[in-house]
Amino acid sequence: MEGVDTKELDRMLHQAFDTASKLYKERGFARRVGFGKRPALVSVDLANAWTRPGNAFTCDQDKMDNEIIPGMQDLLKAFRAKNLPVVHVTTAYEITDREAEFTDMGLWHDKIPVDVVNLKDEELWAIDDRIAPVDGEYTLLKKRASAFHGTELAGILRANNVDTILVTGVTACACVRQTICDGIADGFRTIAVKEAIGDRVPGAVAWNLFDIDAKFGDVETVKTCVDYVNKL
Amino acid sequence: MEGVDTKELDRMLHQAFDTASKLYKERGFARRVGFGKRPALVSVDLANAWTRPGNAFTCDQDKMDNEIIPGMQDLLKAFRAKNLPVVHVTTAYEITDREAEFTDMGLWHDKIPVDVVNLKDEELWAIDDRIAPVDGEYTLLKKRASAFHGTELAGILRANNVDTILVTGVTACACVRQTICDGIADGFRTIAVKEAIGDRVPGAVAWNLFDIDAKFGDVETVKTCVDYVNKL
Amino acid sequence: MEGVDTKELDRMLHQAFDTASKLYKERGFARRVGFGKRPALVSVDLANAWTRPGNAFTCDQDKMDNEIIPGMQDLLKAFRAKNLPVVHVTTAYEITDREAEFTDMGLWHDKIPVDVVNLKDEELWAIDDRIAPVDGEYTLLKKRASAFHGTELAGILRANNVDTILVTGVTACACVRQTICDGIADGFRTIAVKEAIGDRVPGAVAWNLFDIDAKFGDVETVKTCVDYVNKL
Amino acid sequence: MEGVDTKELDRMLHQAFDTASKLYKERGFARRVGFGKRPALVSVDLANAWTRPGNAFTCDQDKMDNEIIPGMQDLLKAFRAKNLPVVHVTTAYEITDREAEFTDMGLWHDKIPVDVVNLKDEELWAIDDRIAPVDGEYTLLKKRASAFHGTELAGILRANNVDTILVTGVTACACVRQTICDGIADGFRTIAVKEAIGDRVPGAVAWNLFDIDAKFGDVETVKTCVDYVNKL
Repeated sequence: MEGVDTKELDRMLHQAFDTASKLYKERGFARRVGFGKRPALVSVDLANAWTRPGNAFTCDQDKMDNEIIPGMQDLLKAFRAKNLPVVHVTTAYEITDREAEFTDMGLWHDKIPVDVVNLKDEELWAIDDRIAPVDGEYTLLKKRASAFHGTELAGILRANNVDTILVTGVTACACVRQTICDGIADGFRTIAVKEAIGDRVPGAVAWNLFDIDAKFGDVETVKTCVDYVNKL
Repeated sequence: MEGVDTKELDRMLHQAFDTASKLYKERGFARRVGFGKRPALVSVDLANAWTRPGNAFTCDQDKMDNEIIPGMQDLLKAFRAKNLPVVHVTTAYEITDREAEFTDMGLWHDKIPVDVVNLKDEELWAIDDRIAPVDGEYTLLKKRASAFHGTELAGILRANNVDTILVTGVTACACVRQTICDGIADGFRTIAVKEAIGDRVPGAVAWNLFDIDAKFGDVETVKTCVDYVNKL
Repeated sequence: MEGVDTKELDRMLHQAFDTASKLYKERGFARRVGFGKRPALVSVDLANAWTRPGNAFTCDQDKMDNEIIPGMQDLLKAFRAKNLPVVHVTTAYEITDREAEFTDMGLWHDKIPVDVVNLKDEELWAIDDRIAPVDGEYTLLKKRASAFHGTELAGILRANNVDTILVTGVTACACVRQTICDGIADGFRTIAVKEAIGDRVPGAVAWNLFDIDAKFGDVETVKTCVDYVNKL
Repeated sequence: MEGVDTKELDRMLHQAFDTASKLYKERGFARRVGFGKRPALVSVDLANAWTRPGNAFTCDQDKMDNEIIPGMQDLLKAFRAKNLPVVHVTTAYEITDREAEFTDMGLWHDKIPVDVVNLKDEELWAIDDRIAPVDGEYTLLKKRASAFHGTELAGILRANNVDTILVTGVTACACVRQTICDGIADGFRTIAVKEAIGDRVPGAVAWNLFDIDAKFGDVETVKTCVDYVNKL
């Protein structure tokens, strides 16, 4: 990305992370919450408005095509082989006129362009067909950053005896992070799947995964996650 | 802090923020949610375990003593002059034995040392006496990062016709950020008070306020916030 | 309804309500929460599976056709004249196979036949066309009894400065009651619109409105509610 | 209780329940959610203001002393023998001045006399000492009817792998019913313990347990519940 030396940024961030990690370890942070007995895959906003070019929400396309989508394909294969719960989360709104008297966007359109994702424009919020839901998988329509806040998710996972969530998707600094923070607060062992989480601005994946790993969920590779599911 | 050149880190981060801001502006992010008509001050975890030295939760002491506490004192003076709602948030647990069969720590003690803040040790979770609650101000005891998640806060703010929250405290990467993200999701105009938000590791205040300002709440100075309250 | 003398039941219930009311008044219960400044109309499950004959969820048809629908028509006329928020709530599920590994019904299908309302069968969960939503009105799809629990409702009402909800629909003993109890807990002045609330079993409307009026919201007539809206 | 022939009321109610049950069975309601593998005991508002004479919240004393407290003692014995989670729920407020600018009572004091239970008056909200919490049991302080709404309860139960809740306490028409309705919505198998649930007005226990059993949780006797726990 123009305007920032991403390699140099990355080097500086990791220096900061190393310093912080030392403090965190001394103080008893960055513990491992670990994998539980029954996981669900919670894939956040891997819908066309985020995964494909040309939208205000479009994310880093290299990362999307070469890491996130292939990572998700590996995870889906593992989850489907074990018939474990998969939740595809997406975001759209009924009333997207910013001047409307009443809207389901709440106040969020006063910060970000959620008004571009109208529920009638299904192409925008449909899950990317490279990872399309299959029969028995759940598509959750949310209105906010978190897949848990103001949704039925915690209740239906608990009803299904799920104790662990593997979280993927975009963006690291908004919907993925909020889903992870709420996930552990709601009582689930929460795992951020490293290569399968993206964003659209430099540094955001790095610093958000760092914060998450220190305090809210374990950051693990796709391979570790797939191995875990395969062994269940 | 040893091990990282914080000035150089700061320079690199602001280069990254500039690049990101350009993209955000082009895409319609980083809008202003603005101040509403009736604010509450929500001060997060400015209790002794976080504000004073010697605890696992102790934050950056320079920032605490020279910016956060003085900033809070200015804000409290303004809110008290107008008899506006003030909520002092703190965190403590009844059952802090990590081997206990059942605990109100949920799974969070599997990530961070919440087991050090037992409800019986009131000195730890009492609000710092430099900004001690006065009669009519509310002390909210929470169990998780967010002051909203699993608490009565949204309901009692709405019942009181509050439409705006000014958020201060620690830490930027956990309880403050979660409170802000939930605040706008729950329908409140959410303002992060710039100098009155701290952390304990290098960079965390900067990157979390950056993410917040882009997507969840406006970052404003103590002076802007005090001026707003004075004019109500 | 066969098997019970509904007049005699009603007489006995009102005797019990009179005795209870005396105790409640002496003890300081059954206070008036009153109407606020900006109401929303929240109409619960007035969708075809509940309003029309032939479904497991079909409610008392006399009451539906002669009181609830006409009452709703009067309320809608008043709300629309003032351009005030209207929320049409309905209930449906993506995965209604009771033997499915994972379902959005949670555990509720273990108590009631929610498995009959599949999201694909839009005719079942579409709002009754006698009170069909118009442009700018919101249709909320819920999964549980309450229109608030696990939904975006509280947040979007607060974002719109709503302070009062007028609740109508079915059934008194489930979705209407839960919506009302959550409404006041979430900080809204909650009004149960007397003639516009129904059920499908004898006595249920009477005893649920009695409990509600004593503790959770004011029971008011359609006329009182329409007059209130007209005067705003 | 004066003013109502409670035997005749009971007879009429059961006639109504029989008629309703016939309809419910034909339609597929009143299914059994059943007991799961790991229960928690959730005891609602069995604190002195509710269990002892002389308070606005005082409940039916015969039922309290002769059924609820002995039932709870049997349940506690069983849960403690198995070291299973016990949650004692109570209700109190920091700011109980009804004219206060801001209060944690929300709007509820506009319906019922919650202003009598101030947090400083610990005697009022302390759990009745006939069933006093022992070490390792959790005391949950709530502000609303439900033990789940605006509290940490669902999250900490999930974190502890609880899948079933046995609910006792008072009152049937408010805090017990709301706890049960939210319990199943949050994904827990919910059991109302028949003899251990009370109220303060005639009929309220009967009609609320009827509604609950039809739609939200199974009503089971103390003996059935104790036997279930003993066999775990």
